[in-house]
Amino acid sequence: MKDKFYDYIQKLQDNITAKLEEVDGKAKFQQDIWERPEGGGGRTRVIENGNVFEKGGVNISKVYGELPKSMQQYFGVEDADFFACGLSLVIHPKSPMVPTVHANWRYFEMYNKNGDIVDQWFGGGQDLTPYYLFEEDAQHFHRTCKNACDAHNPEFYPTYKKRCDEYFWNAHRNEARGVGGLFFDYCKATETMNMEDWYNYVTEVGDSFLDAYIPIVTKRKEMEYTLEQRDWQEIRRGRYVEFNLVHDKGTLFGLRTNGRIESILMSLPPHVQWRYDHHPEKGSPEEQLIEVLQHPKNWV
Amino acid sequence: MKDKFYDYIQKLQDNITAKLEEVDGKAKFQQDIWERPEGGGGRTRVIENGNVFEKGGVNISKVYGELPKSMQQYFGVEDADFFACGLSLVIHPKSPMVPTVHANWRYFEMYNKNGDIVDQWFGGGQDLTPYYLFEEDAQHFHRTCKNACDAHNPEFYPTYKKRCDEYFWNAHRNEARGVGGLFFDYCKATETMNMEDWYNYVTEVGDSFLDAYIPIVTKRKEMEYTLEQRDWQEIRRGRYVEFNLVHDKGTLFGLRTNGRIESILMSLPPHVQWRYDHHPEKGSPEEQLIEVLQHPKNWV
Repeated sequence: MKDKFYDYIQKLQDNITAKLEEVDGKAKFQQDIWERPEGGGGRTRVIENGNVFEKGGVNISKVYGELPKSMQQYFGVEDADFFACGLSLVIHPKSPMVPTVHANWRYFEMYNKNGDIVDQWFGGGQDLTPYYLFEEDAQHFHRTCKNACDAHNPEFYPTYKKRCDEYFWNAHRNEARGVGGLFFDYCKATETMNMEDWYNYVTEVGDSFLDAYIPIVTKRKEMEYTLEQRDWQEIRRGRYVEFNLVHDKGTLFGLRTNGRIESILMSLPPHVQWRYDHHPEKGSPEEQLIEVLQHPKNWV
Repeated sequence: MKDKFYDYIQKLQDNITAKLEEVDGKAKFQQDIWERPEGGGGRTRVIENGNVFEKGGVNISKVYGELPKSMQQYFGVEDADFFACGLSLVIHPKSPMVPTVHANWRYFEMYNKNGDIVDQWFGGGQDLTPYYLFEEDAQHFHRTCKNACDAHNPEFYPTYKKRCDEYFWNAHRNEARGVGGLFFDYCKATETMNMEDWYNYVTEVGDSFLDAYIPIVTKRKEMEYTLEQRDWQEIRRGRYVEFNLVHDKGTLFGLRTNGRIESILMSLPPHVQWRYDHHPEKGSPEEQLIEVLQHPKNWV
């Protein structure tokens, strides 16, 4: 399973970066291969200063070896070996009319000292962070997520949509990071879903990513915008930074386990603003966005 | 003691904001009075878009009541009442030639259910974060800190200088946030220092702040700089954000104890950049700064 899934994310990284380059029409992904001294490594691909994409990364990694002390505590186990691989992406478009997107699909195995698998699971999801809210875009993104889920279990979409709203909650701001999507974790074998079934589900979600995001980019990328709208995007990107550095378990985990910093923090936006006590005008599109972020909606 | 120290920080806030407005020559501090539902409140003063200061806050607060659950765990006590007051400031100048400065002076009391003081201490410090390193500025700042300390105990400066380097260590970047200054905490009554002595020490440090910082601002504020130098400042400000949101106990504490978000996050810089895997040129002033941040120096 681990080899099969790692093959899958390698190909998915190729597909996604190729498509994003095509849509951008100017910038190319820069690739960095890195190694983890304790075992494994990754292939980081970053795009910057494109026509459409201002900064983004589509990274895969495969790490293994002894479970680090910090992870032992986290999982409540003692001496164990582990294997983890996954694809993580964050794309920050230049235009405030084009939403930021984040996605991650990952697989984890834990072994006892004889090398037997004692636990294994999938996790992941994808979520959208607009700066100006076009309801039809949020609906399209969620409908694509739902279609990928429904082929496997009709409960998946409502369950993982709700978990996404809960996970990407910027608690100190009392608002969601964006309009959500899917978030699932610890997807383990059950009576109705064996690991092969989970593989089929997770890869179907992975395969749906470009269908969920690219039509939105294509629709919005030529729209005009003002400097004030760009300012608003940069202020909202500040909230993205706050979530990732204060609340996001993946980021903090990476920072605490000596991960490759530049691959972890590629998620941070290129240009960001913080203003003191900034509030959009009553009734403005900016305020309407906040209203929805404070009260997550059902989009399909 | 609590009334005496609160009087002191009120006057110090007035002195500092008046002097900063004078040096800026354009922007004025905007004042917000806020109340804490559980007891106390604060007086936040923020300056934005000045000639010299792009964004900054000089805030005082006085909070009291039942010790919140999160603080009970932190201090390892059960039901208790508390009082805390302090002044916190962060100033982000517009020019990359003028360093950012941070300072904080605070006093804490803890009570049993009869209202007796069971513990009390002072804490605080001040530290400098340059974007271009002028050694004489770092020396001036540290010498001023040392002079304030030496009148009280010759051990204070070396001890609190070292603690400052340790506290403001951006561990995931393996570098200091800036060139340091002083950091002290849990300053409690001992055989040689009663609380009155600590009051005299902490207020002497507070009184030294303008002497430590303003001569540097005056010396550097008219210097010319390029857009590339401004970019470098914004990239370095990203490290400031990373420290404050990932490592700074004060910030995280505020976010977790339902503090006033806008007063806590006034510390974040106005315009910030993140670039993937950015490294300054070999031998450049930018690289020289990093070299010093990675290997904190003795300045006096």
